[in-house]
Amino acid sequence: MVYITRRERFNAAHKLYIPEWSEEKNLEVFGKCSNPNWHGHNYDLFVTVKGDADPKTGLVMDLKALSRVIRERVTDKLDHKNMNLDVDFMKGRMPSAEVLAEAIWEQLEGPVREMGGQLHKVRLTETENNIVEYLGKEQP
Amino acid sequence: MVYITRRERFNAAHKLYIPEWSEEKNLEVFGKCSNPNWHGHNYDLFVTVKGDADPKTGLVMDLKALSRVIRERVTDKLDHKNMNLDVDFMKGRMPSAEVLAEAIWEQLEGPVREMGGQLHKVRLTETENNIVEYLGKEQP
Amino acid sequence: MVYITRRERFNAAHKLYIPEWSEEKNLEVFGKCSNPNWHGHNYDLFVTVKGDADPKTGLVMDLKALSRVIRERVTDKLDHKNMNLDVDFMKGRMPSAEVLAEAIWEQLEGPVREMGGQLHKVRLTETENNIVEYLGKEQP
Amino acid sequence: MVYITRRERFNAAHKLYIPEWSEEKNLEVFGKCSNPNWHGHNYDLFVTVKGDADPKTGLVMDLKALSRVIRERVTDKLDHKNMNLDVDFMKGRMPSAEVLAEAIWEQLEGPVREMGGQLHKVRLTETENNIVEYLGKEQP
Amino acid sequence: MVYITRRERFNAAHKLYIPEWSEEKNLEVFGKCSNPNWHGHNYDLFVTVKGDADPKTGLVMDLKALSRVIRERVTDKLDHKNMNLDVDFMKGRMPSAEVLAEAIWEQLEGPVREMGGQLHKVRLTETENNIVEYLGKEQP
Amino acid sequence: MVYITRRERFNAAHKLYIPEWSEEKNLEVFGKCSNPNWHGHNYDLFVTVKGDADPKTGLVMDLKALSRVIRERVTDKLDHKNMNLDVDFMKGRMPSAEVLAEAIWEQLEGPVREMGGQLHKVRLTETENNIVEYLGKEQP
Repeated sequence: MVYITRRERFNAAHKLYIPEWSEEKNLEVFGKCSNPNWHGHNYDLFVTVKGDADPKTGLVMDLKALSRVIRERVTDKLDHKNMNLDVDFMKGRMPSAEVLAEAIWEQLEGPVREMGGQLHKVRLTETENNIVEYLGKEQP
Repeated sequence: MVYITRRERFNAAHKLYIPEWSEEKNLEVFGKCSNPNWHGHNYDLFVTVKGDADPKTGLVMDLKALSRVIRERVTDKLDHKNMNLDVDFMKGRMPSAEVLAEAIWEQLEGPVREMGGQLHKVRLTETENNIVEYLGKEQP
Repeated sequence: MVYITRRERFNAAHKLYIPEWSEEKNLEVFGKCSNPNWHGHNYDLFVTVKGDADPKTGLVMDLKALSRVIRERVTDKLDHKNMNLDVDFMKGRMPSAEVLAEAIWEQLEGPVREMGGQLHKVRLTETENNIVEYLGKEQP
Repeated sequence: MVYITRRERFNAAHKLYIPEWSEEKNLEVFGKCSNPNWHGHNYDLFVTVKGDADPKTGLVMDLKALSRVIRERVTDKLDHKNMNLDVDFMKGRMPSAEVLAEAIWEQLEGPVREMGGQLHKVRLTETENNIVEYLGKEQP
Repeated sequence: MVYITRRERFNAAHKLYIPEWSEEKNLEVFGKCSNPNWHGHNYDLFVTVKGDADPKTGLVMDLKALSRVIRERVTDKLDHKNMNLDVDFMKGRMPSAEVLAEAIWEQLEGPVREMGGQLHKVRLTETENNIVEYLGKEQP
Repeated sequence: MVYITRRERFNAAHKLYIPEWSEEKNLEVFGKCSNPNWHGHNYDLFVTVKGDADPKTGLVMDLKALSRVIRERVTDKLDHKNMNLDVDFMKGRMPSAEVLAEAIWEQLEGPVREMGGQLHKVRLTETENNIVEYLGKEQP
């Protein structure tokens, strides 16, 4: 079993904000992240897949194909977008890094399985100080 | 003459967009950066000041004071904000990295001079691939 | 279950030195790290907490509060200090990265639990080449 | 139990290429990595060892000794070499990052055990976007 | 006048080797870089262009267009190639970082001028420890 | 004319402190850097030399030789040392990054000239936020 990780990047706007709360309550819970006019980040997305290296090719998976799937199903939809408004798989969900990591897992788990791999981890760095990781529902 | 550089960071939303142009024209000129619902970045700001090291203290300038001035006049105003809508010194200006670097220079040149230093360079990294530097109007 | 990680930084002096040993024996075991007049590092501390994302806010934990706890209980005590002499929770302990990671775990485990999270990992980078991780006593 | 990681680096040439296949088939499977005249990378190798910190010295293992073993058995053999042609422990093996990580594990597992530690992970970054990790045959 | 920098990356093989010299002489002058079977690197290329920000768009130059030119004329030709054998603009030239930076300058100076900018600097990082910069023949 | 830069690293302890001042005055001027029991940093030192690439070898200078000179005259003397107490070329000087950069310049200017190059810049990063550069007395 070997773990391979592909990094892709995207830049997006968001706010953490619950509409039925007052601006004060949002500020109290979400801090600067609740700024009504949005803010944004450069996200680094690390997708880890596990599998056995093919005895002939030495590869767990075609990394170009993995990169293509990540871009088609995730980063092309997020890059230079507003995550609260523009992204189909984030509709109705809070665009926190935590929820975003779970949503990205949902976008990738099936396609990775179809490609013969097993999704192991979604890692998202929002800033150099804030990192989120999700390993699926069946993680130990 | 020694050059000292202080890095500060901010995360902000923006779009590159000229209202009197059509969406198509904006897309043609600004690409993904014209997304109507905004996008955003983690910016790294490097402010370089030149001066002589004080013979007694060995310092060109109090770096904590420089950091404070950068935060008060620049990054506190930009961090977790929308640069098109929320920032006084960017009002009516296109929030491209180029214009932003010039505007940050204007914010800092006077205060740095008052502190006994000379502003030398404003460097802004918008992504790991895109960097802008401004050295003032009198640069060679 | 989602894992969130907060990075905080501190710069400190230390030496690895056993007083009842000769300087030669210390040099043999600890190498350059035994320099009697100290040396120092920029440490990057990564604190990982696991928990479920709140269905309403999308957050595992208030990262600002986590950052505050790390600073109050750990990095404010270590930053710009001598770890052999100045730090209460390191008194009588060897300031190796290994012991330091265990000591930081002890400082944070209780407070993180009170905040509703579960401390998962303390990661400490001493240089770009040397990294230590501690996951607590009950790790698998 | 504490995990310590040592980074070492090497720069090497390779190609991913199966001689009995046509150039077209190689290109289809391995993409640009099949370039007949080779290409190369700067590799970052992270070797993680687990063990208990010695109660007296506070160390899991002498990091200088670990570094020496990694250099003697791995990076001195790979650095500024062609991995398809020049490296004894890669003879007859595909120099993909996956196989390379497994081969490095085999080179280090015994020596690390003799030094009183337990090899936990071999991590290899081939580019800033491609990472491989191997944790041995008995990993969960 | 503002300076904008675009980073592009490529991975390539090379050797520093003068055929009419003995292997010993090559080893003496070029060290490990003379390995007959090649070695390779991940190169980071930073291309800096200077110009005035357009008063309307706030841009010195279309960065996507600059990126396209760099890829077409430089990095597509170098990426996953052998710089001694495969690259037209390096034919008959020693693929040291110094010569490579000069050759990249020659590839880009004209096209950048046609795009309305002025090439200011080519910066090439060969490893995290080795960097080369070239500013053209007329630099002060 | 090409600029080549070699990075070397060292880890050292220091304090910024003027003995004839009170502890309060030192704290006021130097902040946390005046901690009586020292603190320390990981320093990255970038030494830039300018010269013409040799038409035969393509090299400005033997980088291994440059690295050796930097280590012998600078980093071996600083690494794992106390800069206030242990370093001959810092005796009687304030170990601020500014003064340190000037002192490193003095250590290297002659030897680099003897090797046929011209020292252009000494750059020192003390933390990821604080950087100092010195270009000699005759800089424009």
